[in-house]
Amino acid sequence: MTSSRSPARPLAVIILAAGQGTRMKSARHKVLHPIAGRPMLLHLLASVAELQPERQVVVVGAGREQVERAVEGSGAVIAVQEQQLGTGHAVAQAHDALAGFAGDILILYGDVPLVRAETLRSMLDRLNWGDEPRAVVLGFRPEDAAAYGRIIARDQGVIEKMVEYKDANAEERAVTLCNSGLMAVRSTDLFVLLDKIGNDNAAGEYYLPDIVMLPGAQSAVIEAEAWEVAGVNSRAELAGVEAVWQDRRRAEAMREGATLIAPETVFFAHDTLLGRDVVIEPHVVFGPGVSVADDATIHAFSHLEGAAVGKGAEIGPYARLRPGAKIGVKAKVGNFVEVKKAELGEGAKANHLSYIGDASVGAGANIGAGTITCNYDGFFKYRTEIGVGAFIGSNSALVAPVKIGDGAIVAAGSVVTQPVEADALCLVRPKQEAKPGWAARFRARMQARKAAK
Amino acid sequence: MTSSRSPARPLAVIILAAGQGTRMKSARHKVLHPIAGRPMLLHLLASVAELQPERQVVVVGAGREQVERAVEGSGAVIAVQEQQLGTGHAVAQAHDALAGFAGDILILYGDVPLVRAETLRSMLDRLNWGDEPRAVVLGFRPEDAAAYGRIIARDQGVIEKMVEYKDANAEERAVTLCNSGLMAVRSTDLFVLLDKIGNDNAAGEYYLPDIVMLPGAQSAVIEAEAWEVAGVNSRAELAGVEAVWQDRRRAEAMREGATLIAPETVFFAHDTLLGRDVVIEPHVVFGPGVSVADDATIHAFSHLEGAAVGKGAEIGPYARLRPGAKIGVKAKVGNFVEVKKAELGEGAKANHLSYIGDASVGAGANIGAGTITCNYDGFFKYRTEIGVGAFIGSNSALVAPVKIGDGAIVAAGSVVTQPVEADALCLVRPKQEAKPGWAARFRARMQARKAAK
Amino acid sequence: MTSSRSPARPLAVIILAAGQGTRMKSARHKVLHPIAGRPMLLHLLASVAELQPERQVVVVGAGREQVERAVEGSGAVIAVQEQQLGTGHAVAQAHDALAGFAGDILILYGDVPLVRAETLRSMLDRLNWGDEPRAVVLGFRPEDAAAYGRIIARDQGVIEKMVEYKDANAEERAVTLCNSGLMAVRSTDLFVLLDKIGNDNAAGEYYLPDIVMLPGAQSAVIEAEAWEVAGVNSRAELAGVEAVWQDRRRAEAMREGATLIAPETVFFAHDTLLGRDVVIEPHVVFGPGVSVADDATIHAFSHLEGAAVGKGAEIGPYARLRPGAKIGVKAKVGNFVEVKKAELGEGAKANHLSYIGDASVGAGANIGAGTITCNYDGFFKYRTEIGVGAFIGSNSALVAPVKIGDGAIVAAGSVVTQPVEADALCLVRPKQEAKPGWAARFRARMQARKAAK
Repeated sequence: MTSSRSPARPLAVIILAAGQGTRMKSARHKVLHPIAGRPMLLHLLASVAELQPERQVVVVGAGREQVERAVEGSGAVIAVQEQQLGTGHAVAQAHDALAGFAGDILILYGDVPLVRAETLRSMLDRLNWGDEPRAVVLGFRPEDAAAYGRIIARDQGVIEKMVEYKDANAEERAVTLCNSGLMAVRSTDLFVLLDKIGNDNAAGEYYLPDIVMLPGAQSAVIEAEAWEVAGVNSRAELAGVEAVWQDRRRAEAMREGATLIAPETVFFAHDTLLGRDVVIEPHVVFGPGVSVADDATIHAFSHLEGAAVGKGAEIGPYARLRPGAKIGVKAKVGNFVEVKKAELGEGAKANHLSYIGDASVGAGANIGAGTITCNYDGFFKYRTEIGVGAFIGSNSALVAPVKIGDGAIVAAGSVVTQPVEADALCLVRPKQEAKPGWAARFRARMQARKAAK
Repeated sequence: MTSSRSPARPLAVIILAAGQGTRMKSARHKVLHPIAGRPMLLHLLASVAELQPERQVVVVGAGREQVERAVEGSGAVIAVQEQQLGTGHAVAQAHDALAGFAGDILILYGDVPLVRAETLRSMLDRLNWGDEPRAVVLGFRPEDAAAYGRIIARDQGVIEKMVEYKDANAEERAVTLCNSGLMAVRSTDLFVLLDKIGNDNAAGEYYLPDIVMLPGAQSAVIEAEAWEVAGVNSRAELAGVEAVWQDRRRAEAMREGATLIAPETVFFAHDTLLGRDVVIEPHVVFGPGVSVADDATIHAFSHLEGAAVGKGAEIGPYARLRPGAKIGVKAKVGNFVEVKKAELGEGAKANHLSYIGDASVGAGANIGAGTITCNYDGFFKYRTEIGVGAFIGSNSALVAPVKIGDGAIVAAGSVVTQPVEADALCLVRPKQEAKPGWAARFRARMQARKAAK
Repeated sequence: MTSSRSPARPLAVIILAAGQGTRMKSARHKVLHPIAGRPMLLHLLASVAELQPERQVVVVGAGREQVERAVEGSGAVIAVQEQQLGTGHAVAQAHDALAGFAGDILILYGDVPLVRAETLRSMLDRLNWGDEPRAVVLGFRPEDAAAYGRIIARDQGVIEKMVEYKDANAEERAVTLCNSGLMAVRSTDLFVLLDKIGNDNAAGEYYLPDIVMLPGAQSAVIEAEAWEVAGVNSRAELAGVEAVWQDRRRAEAMREGATLIAPETVFFAHDTLLGRDVVIEPHVVFGPGVSVADDATIHAFSHLEGAAVGKGAEIGPYARLRPGAKIGVKAKVGNFVEVKKAELGEGAKANHLSYIGDASVGAGANIGAGTITCNYDGFFKYRTEIGVGAFIGSNSALVAPVKIGDGAIVAAGSVVTQPVEADALCLVRPKQEAKPGWAARFRARMQARKAAK
């Protein structure tokens, strides 16, 4: 996973996130909408982190506080673009944050979250190679080039012309190489060039790509896969980028030795870890923070989040593992069972209709159907400890804090409030009463009442 | 949603639904198979209703009663085609039902349910515009034109020729504009023209499209999207039309500001209402009658029907909301919880493994895991009322009719049959007994028995 | 389903399964990875069985024991290829197992599981027709012919040339007919021809297709659909073949009169049986051994395995039927209900949050929400018998072995350990106690404690 550029020239990254995102129709800042359970912007920062940048500047317009909170701890700083005067103007707002920095600068977009570290590295490599171009532009070849700006390039990606679609002639429009907007420039050039571009256009905006065609040194293009530079301007595009991410992750999971019976119905989080010969049945959802060890099976309709699944364990169908669930080797969590902040020891079983929260369950223990750990009194949470090899009868309620000793048996239907010692039987049950014929009389009465209505 | 034609010429609609539907292999009438939880025919009547028709006639063959029941209250009347003598003959069966009607007539198909009101309006507009054609045919350009009848048209959609595929020459077959069968005709023309067409063909049937090529005035074509005129002759085509409907609805939901993480796994009903910044996780199914307010989250594997979800509420994963569920602002319904005919007040929680039926739950109340409202005695249903801020301990059974006062606490595992007053503790619990060593002796005995087998 | 060749020449089948399958990254033998819940190899043997072969030989390399166990009872024998010296060499390992056999031989691949019996039959028919070619090769036309070997054929499929992609010239590469590797040869020819092929190639292997171009008699090709000969070399290809299988099965289900609202979310097993007018909602998974009778509905998020669903029954949403579940006519199994080795009589209902295992439930009986049959004591399983028309109150635990008589009522929350006679009421319930004001005092104390933290 670790990687570093070589030779290691200092790197700064500017991430533009000043767009209004109005098409999202959301109170949430566009770059904070999640992909695979992680805000877009953090996907980008994670890729950037592989290049060990010295500085990271996120340029925002509205919603500064949201973004600031989200990047906390990442080392990124915020610059604000008060007025929306174009991408060139937006980049210029990073000037102060980069004061004193000397090295290479990558210009990225907060709503283009899937670009890979290796692609960024290629941009930087090209910037410092051969003719050492003034700027390296990231190009791509979309399925439908539509109205994207075109890049006319020759050998080694040297750019002859970069032209907006509306200004392009027929021959230029026939070119399939388009401009993604991502760019690498040296710190010594960037702000000098930005000073030279104008806003003599219909929108009165300063366009970053204009620096490429300024007189002087030449620029170069390298190509990315189209999916890497897919941008998010609407919820539909958000779903589209999520779909690309999921498809790539599914393919990777299968390549590494997991069976996905119906990959298109399985959803991973950004950090899901899977062992070898893991089987994932249809309709499974992973939230963040899940690891699944070798030979484990995740049955259909399971939902896992913040959970560690041990080797050979069986989860589901319809199991919900919540944060802090640690399922031991060959343990089983069955249908309609929720586990939260609880450890199940090796071979322990909770197969049906149970809630196991704030608990530890010893190896080989058997939790009967309908068992509930009563962990909450409305104010505080308490722990339940269940010993090795204990047997909890069905429909029991274990009122925490409470401890069930090793090898103890709790009879079905018990409400356990006192500790149960090892190897003891715990019984909490009134006498069974019978009222012969009562049901027949009741039925007769009710049928009469029903008829009377 | 409201719209009206202008100028408002009187409108009648004939919907043909006399086909046998044998490829459906179903005891249910073909036009009553549902799309998005509503019979196809009612989708069509809903679109038609936007045009405020004076009369609506549904022409059926077999299965009259089923169709009659389905259209009850819609204002549509039934005409019966006793013998299957072709579409022209079917339309003629509407003659009596339209006696005395003067105006425009739309001829639609009960198994072509997705045509939009605006498309129908365009047909009527064209009928009463410029050259005022005798008939307006709805054309479309399918991906694979296959054996559809072709329409040869010139400027302004004036039809030069309409030709069955089998009769078309190579040049005509190369035309991509096909005939959907939907048509608009004036009442003064329709039955006169029908009288003139013959049945001199292999099947001995009277074909409606033949009225277009009759000598006299000319007809015109306008174009619809191919998906609008997709027909249903088999369950596979039914699934295909459902898929088109769902895809369009998902796109609309995202356009209007809902996040669908995996839109292809979410299924809406015809009347689902969604607020802004609603998040819908993968694998969610909406039955009819659901509204979801702003900022609510519907977690994975949830199933909602006839339910109102309040602002900022959290539903699921694995929540089932059934008709009459009203979930308050910021309330929570968690995993393996079913709610039916029950209101949860603001901030109330039922997070795990519960059945809340025929009940009201006060604001801020907490329903413990495994709680059941016992609402049914085999004959009648009774209500459970739970007060504001009440706390119901886990695994409790509340035997309705019963009332739990504001701020009351029910101890875990209680079976509550008497009212609990406000701020009281209710306890229904036998003493816990212990039999030391019993479990160890039991295990030894059972292991011996198992060994003996 | 039954079919037989005519005239019935004796048939032997060689299935090659000696590949390492390293790209699967699995401890399981490649040909034993399941499609639709059945190992690939057994899909192939099932198709082969329709042709009533006299002998079946599976040639394996590593993992002999796994394969041997899997084919037990099928009549297939194992031959071992100790060294990986090519497909020609692999086929030669079947020599001893076919000693004394005279007739036709089909050569198939364990990782090409979807080939249909009718396609195999066509191969054999062609082998014994007209010019009686020496070998019949199964060809196909892939979407992307890529590096597959090409087949140059003329009238009636007579092969002029079969050429590896790397050896093919431009004209030959333009041919779209490719070699699948499947072949039919007479027993009198096969081993004679194999002796003649060499291993003078880069890999030093003996290639089976080389027998086609040996001097002497000519061979012929017949064509299969590309999906039939899709091979599995990776988990992604396994998922691809599963997807093909599922799509075909879904189409068949709809053709035969089942409604699948969202076919792409429904997963069948190899042996699922469906009646007419069965409705299957989105997100349903079938394991092996399920039959569903006419007019039954399987609601969303249901999971069925080894279960028989009666006419007009309603299953789910969120129902899990496990092996041995027999659901009667018009019976209902509702949400979060698990049924295992249990029969529900006509019209019986278990609608919410229940576990019904090792039980029989009489016709018309009503199982209340949260009911658990306690069938396991940690060592043995016991049965629960519930009579006709019985009513089990919510949250009850029925401790097996136990019998509830016809028409009996069990009060809510009961733990039943003794038999309940017919028409009796069974009540197991302590007195309800109240502690007025306790909850208010508790809250005050806890709030103080919380504030102190």
